[in-house]
Amino acid sequence: MSSPSSASDELVQDLVDANHILHHQGIVDAFGHVSVRHDGDASRFLLARNMAPARVQATDILEYEVATGEPVLPNPPRLYLERTIHSEIYKARPDVMAVVHNHSPAVLPFCIARGARLKPVCHMAGFLGGADAPDGPVLFEIRDHAGPGSDLLIRNRELGAALARRLGDSRVVLMRGHGCTVVAPSLPVAVFRAVYTEVNAKLLLQTLPLGEVNALTPEEADATRISNEGQAARPWDLWREQARRARRE
Amino acid sequence: MSSPSSASDELVQDLVDANHILHHQGIVDAFGHVSVRHDGDASRFLLARNMAPARVQATDILEYEVATGEPVLPNPPRLYLERTIHSEIYKARPDVMAVVHNHSPAVLPFCIARGARLKPVCHMAGFLGGADAPDGPVLFEIRDHAGPGSDLLIRNRELGAALARRLGDSRVVLMRGHGCTVVAPSLPVAVFRAVYTEVNAKLLLQTLPLGEVNALTPEEADATRISNEGQAARPWDLWREQARRARRE
Amino acid sequence: MSSPSSASDELVQDLVDANHILHHQGIVDAFGHVSVRHDGDASRFLLARNMAPARVQATDILEYEVATGEPVLPNPPRLYLERTIHSEIYKARPDVMAVVHNHSPAVLPFCIARGARLKPVCHMAGFLGGADAPDGPVLFEIRDHAGPGSDLLIRNRELGAALARRLGDSRVVLMRGHGCTVVAPSLPVAVFRAVYTEVNAKLLLQTLPLGEVNALTPEEADATRISNEGQAARPWDLWREQARRARRE
Amino acid sequence: MSSPSSASDELVQDLVDANHILHHQGIVDAFGHVSVRHDGDASRFLLARNMAPARVQATDILEYEVATGEPVLPNPPRLYLERTIHSEIYKARPDVMAVVHNHSPAVLPFCIARGARLKPVCHMAGFLGGADAPDGPVLFEIRDHAGPGSDLLIRNRELGAALARRLGDSRVVLMRGHGCTVVAPSLPVAVFRAVYTEVNAKLLLQTLPLGEVNALTPEEADATRISNEGQAARPWDLWREQARRARRE
Repeated sequence: MSSPSSASDELVQDLVDANHILHHQGIVDAFGHVSVRHDGDASRFLLARNMAPARVQATDILEYEVATGEPVLPNPPRLYLERTIHSEIYKARPDVMAVVHNHSPAVLPFCIARGARLKPVCHMAGFLGGADAPDGPVLFEIRDHAGPGSDLLIRNRELGAALARRLGDSRVVLMRGHGCTVVAPSLPVAVFRAVYTEVNAKLLLQTLPLGEVNALTPEEADATRISNEGQAARPWDLWREQARRARRE
Repeated sequence: MSSPSSASDELVQDLVDANHILHHQGIVDAFGHVSVRHDGDASRFLLARNMAPARVQATDILEYEVATGEPVLPNPPRLYLERTIHSEIYKARPDVMAVVHNHSPAVLPFCIARGARLKPVCHMAGFLGGADAPDGPVLFEIRDHAGPGSDLLIRNRELGAALARRLGDSRVVLMRGHGCTVVAPSLPVAVFRAVYTEVNAKLLLQTLPLGEVNALTPEEADATRISNEGQAARPWDLWREQARRARRE
Repeated sequence: MSSPSSASDELVQDLVDANHILHHQGIVDAFGHVSVRHDGDASRFLLARNMAPARVQATDILEYEVATGEPVLPNPPRLYLERTIHSEIYKARPDVMAVVHNHSPAVLPFCIARGARLKPVCHMAGFLGGADAPDGPVLFEIRDHAGPGSDLLIRNRELGAALARRLGDSRVVLMRGHGCTVVAPSLPVAVFRAVYTEVNAKLLLQTLPLGEVNALTPEEADATRISNEGQAARPWDLWREQARRARRE
Repeated sequence: MSSPSSASDELVQDLVDANHILHHQGIVDAFGHVSVRHDGDASRFLLARNMAPARVQATDILEYEVATGEPVLPNPPRLYLERTIHSEIYKARPDVMAVVHNHSPAVLPFCIARGARLKPVCHMAGFLGGADAPDGPVLFEIRDHAGPGSDLLIRNRELGAALARRLGDSRVVLMRGHGCTVVAPSLPVAVFRAVYTEVNAKLLLQTLPLGEVNALTPEEADATRISNEGQAARPWDLWREQARRARRE
């Protein structure tokens, strides 16, 4: 079999930072995970072992096979149960370089209320809509795939593949009673999208009692997404500094 | 009379940590308390003297008799008025190894609004429902036991026993105008359940204005509870690290 | 004229701590103030000079005359514009030993929405109701006293006296578009009541969308108030420790 | 061409502090910006280069021409895309000495819900209303100027001028799906107004479910604005101390 490829130190450090940022920004608590595609081998991705994101260090990062969602090295430590969320999306979407799965608190209501739609309502969150998601992210109902008595977890490749199909060509998929999964062409943009999905959800929760929502048009959503992606280094630099300071590094 | 039994140092330290975690996570303020059954004598339990949980140290932990809710040693310091919440539940429920009583802020609305039900709506909080609590935790109305002019406190064994009966075989009981009591087979799981009761309550408060709630089925609730209990060390390790850091230990 | 009386060092330190606690607990921001009646001369009270409560030190505390709301010493520094809130209440209520005035964020909605009532809904906030305030605190509408174009401030003795009359024998008075004023028989109880007025307001704001509110009966409110006042040292000790830590003292 | 004028060190330091205060108070995140008119040359203003406000230092402050919104020095670093918000307002309003643009989280709902009005409801936020804004700030709808497919950004002088016209003689203008812009006769008052715009928005969001809003009259709004502006040093001193402490300076 293949010997382990070696991702760049910079990518590993970015993934550690991404874990800490997502925790510091309130996007993950003790649960949730973030991965990045290997920068030297597109058939692999990097993801921590089973642990709280806030505590991840470089030595906790493992390499996984996109084909199977299984780790490259034998005798791994305890792994995340839901690692096929990542592997199946990398398989279905060659353009995706990073994946965040979380239980983002303001997003969950849109995963619980029947028929609710998380439309983009501010210019920082245009990526939620656009021509390929005109009403905002779609919902993945696991009952359609695992029946009425599952533990709601994406426990195997079949469920991971079903989630990836539901995501389609968009950037965010909601998961009923569970959370969401966010994808992007880079780790900073994935973190950006995960944070602003939460921001937009908070805004929408507060706006709905005020009256009719004036959401972004699909054209506005696409235009703002393109503008914002050119600015992703700005929040990344700030959030990394804040997260490192919070950990006293 | 019996000489004091001696619980393990590890259990005492875990109880100190549980006090600090519950405060750091916003589940208790200056009020509320957490106990654990003695690991060497099932007829006793450990609980702090009357003080804010955030300030509890190992020397503040006392042993109590399950039979009476009274401390083992004579001449105790000032005690929590509501210690029979703990003793009567340990008496009625041999499976219970830890008890948390709190005034969890997002849970209280479900203890105040007539007819409101705290159904499990996310997979982290399946323990709120399941086959033995299909609509979520039941409410204990103290007026039914202490009349219309009480101070709402569980001041004696009779009220503690009535609360334990209302809890039945479930894991959480709401207390009208007061808070809730959470039980579990271990201290980490009790803390986990107390935190995610609050998380689920926040989610439900935010979801209700959006439309019809798609709660977990009883089968999903039971399945997620079993899955999550196998993961309880993950949040416990994180929260303990955070609480210790916050206290600069 | 009279030479300055000398309050105890302990009382001055308690007032400094009360200022810092109220800020740390989010009850005051840069505005709001807390006073205490002089422990050696009931015709005087202690209150800081014009500054943010979080920054008050012992040397910023001045003595004022209850009769006039004016400072004892000549050539004072800049003073709070609304010091007659304090003086007129001490004059009208010999039982009152401490007064907090604030713009408590969750309380304000009950000072803005026409007809809203801040009923006590949890056992920590029984002081809001009881036999002498069966529907919760009353509202002071300054338009009834200063006309439709005032700056809403209690700028003089007449307005202070009108506010004191509206307070009557109760413990909290709401002020339209402005905030509230809380009184108590001691500084720790005044701080306790100011904090739990905010807590109860938050609870009620979250409960109202859920359905009909099951408030404390007047008998429950009075009973819980008496029970809680016996516990006021517990939160005071915690909050003081937290506020001092936050200031790195 | 002109050689660079030199603003006072004090003004530069105040602008650095204003950046940090706005971040610490939650008014800006990684985005948003604050400027001040040059204190030695009214045809220029000071604004940071393109970066998160929390990270701005004195060396990041650049001088810009009011006439064009372009920097005075050649070969500048990367600039904020929306700097004509500032330049066009300074041009249209000689009385304005400081401008804040932000995506203030509680204000956004009033920029999203059709027809919602951010009326002043507490005495700290009278500046939102008054004789020249009797129903609160007006909304700038960028679709009226840039069509239905823009990225919502104020990218050029024409859009900046349109925004300045919509602001008129008032103090705050809302921007649909985007945020708001706040102006003032000094930097401390601009920061004050930006913070209390957010405070008032939070209050109004919480009040609307309670019933009919009793807003300030235009006369009350003008009177409270005048009173509060005399107190602007109090919050400025506190917030600066807090922001500096948070950055460990």
